[in-house]
Amino acid sequence: MTLQKVAIIGVGQTRFGNIIDKKAEELFAEAFLEAVNDVDKGIDISEIQEVYIGNSGVGGGQLGNFSSLMTDYVGLTGASALRIENACASSGFAMRAAILAVSSGVCDVALAGGEEKMNDTPRNRVRYWLGISGDMEWERLSGMTFAGVFALMAIRHMHEYGTKREHLAMVSVKNHKNGASNPKAHLQRETTLERALASPMIAYPLTLFDCCPISDGASAVIVCKADLAKKYTDTPVYVAGHGGSTDRLSVFQRDDVTSINSSVVAAKRAYKMASVKPEDIDVAEVHDCFTIAEIIAYEDLGFCPKGKGGKLLEEGQTEIGGKIPVNPSGGLKSKGHPVGATGTGQIYEIVNQLRGSVEKKNRQVSGAEIGLTHNTGGSGGTTVVHILKR
Amino acid sequence: MTLQKVAIIGVGQTRFGNIIDKKAEELFAEAFLEAVNDVDKGIDISEIQEVYIGNSGVGGGQLGNFSSLMTDYVGLTGASALRIENACASSGFAMRAAILAVSSGVCDVALAGGEEKMNDTPRNRVRYWLGISGDMEWERLSGMTFAGVFALMAIRHMHEYGTKREHLAMVSVKNHKNGASNPKAHLQRETTLERALASPMIAYPLTLFDCCPISDGASAVIVCKADLAKKYTDTPVYVAGHGGSTDRLSVFQRDDVTSINSSVVAAKRAYKMASVKPEDIDVAEVHDCFTIAEIIAYEDLGFCPKGKGGKLLEEGQTEIGGKIPVNPSGGLKSKGHPVGATGTGQIYEIVNQLRGSVEKKNRQVSGAEIGLTHNTGGSGGTTVVHILKR
Repeated sequence: MTLQKVAIIGVGQTRFGNIIDKKAEELFAEAFLEAVNDVDKGIDISEIQEVYIGNSGVGGGQLGNFSSLMTDYVGLTGASALRIENACASSGFAMRAAILAVSSGVCDVALAGGEEKMNDTPRNRVRYWLGISGDMEWERLSGMTFAGVFALMAIRHMHEYGTKREHLAMVSVKNHKNGASNPKAHLQRETTLERALASPMIAYPLTLFDCCPISDGASAVIVCKADLAKKYTDTPVYVAGHGGSTDRLSVFQRDDVTSINSSVVAAKRAYKMASVKPEDIDVAEVHDCFTIAEIIAYEDLGFCPKGKGGKLLEEGQTEIGGKIPVNPSGGLKSKGHPVGATGTGQIYEIVNQLRGSVEKKNRQVSGAEIGLTHNTGGSGGTTVVHILKR
Repeated sequence: MTLQKVAIIGVGQTRFGNIIDKKAEELFAEAFLEAVNDVDKGIDISEIQEVYIGNSGVGGGQLGNFSSLMTDYVGLTGASALRIENACASSGFAMRAAILAVSSGVCDVALAGGEEKMNDTPRNRVRYWLGISGDMEWERLSGMTFAGVFALMAIRHMHEYGTKREHLAMVSVKNHKNGASNPKAHLQRETTLERALASPMIAYPLTLFDCCPISDGASAVIVCKADLAKKYTDTPVYVAGHGGSTDRLSVFQRDDVTSINSSVVAAKRAYKMASVKPEDIDVAEVHDCFTIAEIIAYEDLGFCPKGKGGKLLEEGQTEIGGKIPVNPSGGLKSKGHPVGATGTGQIYEIVNQLRGSVEKKNRQVSGAEIGLTHNTGGSGGTTVVHILKR
């Protein structure tokens, strides 16, 4: 089955971080305007006919009819718009919905984006909001937080495959190193293996440096029919494949807690549609909400055999310059994780990597032609994967 | 532009009402199983590859990664799924997204549905949740509720066009009459003009009988590529057209408060795609959250000229047996309004009307061939319209 091809013609992203002086709609507008200005041959925003916005609803403010407030604020009133909530994968699924809208032929140009404000809400409230993206009845009400769920996955991975706490810390060190050179990252500083290992324990074996921060931010991506792309830009990036999937919501119901099946299935679908294999991927942004999640993602996405994620790190293969650089942006760990903005933020990074337009050359993966994004909701209840080609 | 055609092959809906003994996922499962069993030649649920669920997030329970919980509970784990929140139009937009997914060619069969639990939450909390689907900053924080917004619209409509409180009450009487014969309606009882007019004032000129109830419920619709429809059912209903639109979120920012521009635009798009005119519509379900909203919908959808909604009611044209029967189900007013379930609930009704399969013959619009659904989010920030043909 051949789908109508889709191209990305503009991307934008705010700095991720503790941004308490901007409202949700101001953050979204900043990312949107950057995406519009990124369309190098220009676009009239009235050409944007469909809008898909990811927002998990953390915090307060406008929680209902969110898409209408956003289109209102940026001058897109009249476009068909909707808000998608798939926990931490909200804007990854917004991206896929925008692609499907263009593929369907209902419009020529669509906008995907995401936004989240988390730091103007008390921490216990944020913990509640994040918690409800995992299973409420069996996990949260028995006191298990997300750090607890990923800690269980880590412990089992260590038991089954000999993964060590040092491997987890290596993810942190790598992603902080990348994020330190990313002017849009939340935590723009490096760390060391020693510091990561010695940082406060959150849920054994996960320390503070194994957990991503609580961030504010927004991101936006403009897509169009592939055969119209050159009208808008000299450097389109094409959507080669995509796939979404669900898994059992609660980890205890899954056959294997050392893998996230929604990632495996979503990736399989995306690879098939793109007619590429894991070894064809030149650069990837994966969902490292906790360091163990990045190791599991290597394996679920086929970057290495099952259980060999630690070895891949030891060999430095996922660093910039390695065989398959992962999270050159700094990932959720260092770039930050404004929940609803993360998915299209990953697209922002990969598009710049494929164009060769990363602002600092030490973060640029040289000659990258095929990139992948992997965005997971909660502990894997939902996952969406995109494969992009320049 | 010709889109890949889409057919509806199965529909299901729970009773709408005060259903406190069922969890969200149990309500959704009930509607889903009814839709599956409604596919008269049978369907294996593994054929459902994409799932779109509307839920506005009123109340508590599972608020994040909601789509994963729903697919998990009904045995659809592995399907790509997402939750759509567009206030009261959540599942109307879920329906449109499911149609676009099938149109894009990414799947053969998709599920749209919606669910809302409202009655297990304290009333002040429900009022808050509903309120945030209108503008928070300019309307809610200055104390204006939704009843207040629609009261303003009614007052202005009365001033401009001579619409009377009796016209508002006529909507209530008509919809209660229809709902009284609908075994799935929340308020299965008739009322009189006198009683409606004399009921407690909520926000002048709107009395209690001008306001829809707070309901629990779920609904589900299975769609597929039109050329596969006969494999599943002898009585497919085809999606002839659809359109979505946004309006300014806050009513004070709109040019005219006697009309909802997102309805006008969404309807225009749907009529154009379906190549039909308002006078071709045989039956419609419209968004009567307040009685004035139904009168405005008549005008916005082109069932009568601007300002003549009251006259249309006086003539009985929107009753069953009239020129254009509206809300034969009882509408939001009598059938009920479990926010996230309303949009696909309207599809459920129109599909049964077009099939001639309404359970009680006094509610059946005889010989209906073309039907319309109109689902509005908040006070019109978002609206989606579908046109169906048998």
